[in-house]
Amino acid sequence: MSSKPIYTTAVEAEAAFYDALSRADLEAMMAVWSEDEEVMCVHPGGPRLLGLTAIRESWRQLFHGKPKLNIRLSHHVETANMMMTVHTLVEHVSLADVEAPAPAPVVATNVYSRGAYGWRMVVHHASPTPEAQDSPADGLPRTVH
Amino acid sequence: MSSKPIYTTAVEAEAAFYDALSRADLEAMMAVWSEDEEVMCVHPGGPRLLGLTAIRESWRQLFHGKPKLNIRLSHHVETANMMMTVHTLVEHVSLADVEAPAPAPVVATNVYSRGAYGWRMVVHHASPTPEAQDSPADGLPRTVH
Repeated sequence: MSSKPIYTTAVEAEAAFYDALSRADLEAMMAVWSEDEEVMCVHPGGPRLLGLTAIRESWRQLFHGKPKLNIRLSHHVETANMMMTVHTLVEHVSLADVEAPAPAPVVATNVYSRGAYGWRMVVHHASPTPEAQDSPADGLPRTVH
Repeated sequence: MSSKPIYTTAVEAEAAFYDALSRADLEAMMAVWSEDEEVMCVHPGGPRLLGLTAIRESWRQLFHGKPKLNIRLSHHVETANMMMTVHTLVEHVSLADVEAPAPAPVVATNVYSRGAYGWRMVVHHASPTPEAQDSPADGLPRTVH
């Protein structure tokens, strides 16, 4: 095993996350996650997964068959300080080489923390969203909360 | 208008958030949100809302009719530093005084930032989740991503 990469910014860590996702590369994906802090992952429509073991198992299953994914990201928003960065963005993920309708977009909140080994992901919360565009006035929530 | 409350911890700000939600109190709700940073809110199944104006309008509509809500929170996880705190938790929200099946739980990621006026919310990302218990091994994601 080679030593893990060091991401010097949250942006680098995020690029590595989506690169690993697009290639269904489990080791590259898990290299992005923090080993020092509590980590949490919610896949779209799925339960909350706590801890590296549960998160790794979820990606292992998602990456079964090595799907090649096309990923387009849009509408980034960032909140950041020296030690923590929060990105929210809209993901458009589809299987490469497959003729299929475009999937519903996903809204993701990604939290990165800076530690001794650079920036690592601590939270990935993804959920289906009705539209790709941010909606300041329409498309309001469909449930009480 | 009275001046806004100052929350000295993220835990205080979060308590104020869920108290405002339970009472459908729009002014109390908006007092929790940061006025200094980019703010983002995703209601369950809804679009990403950016900015105080869009977020306020969404809560105004949700609070229409002044629903009284019972809110039970469980399974907190926290990642924090001096300036930013991330809570993930499971919300169980139901209408008070109404006989109805328990609603599906919601997983929420709440981000708070510390500024000149104490701790304020900058991100609330809530999405339906299939079960109340965290699931390290079962209930895996139902979509590719």
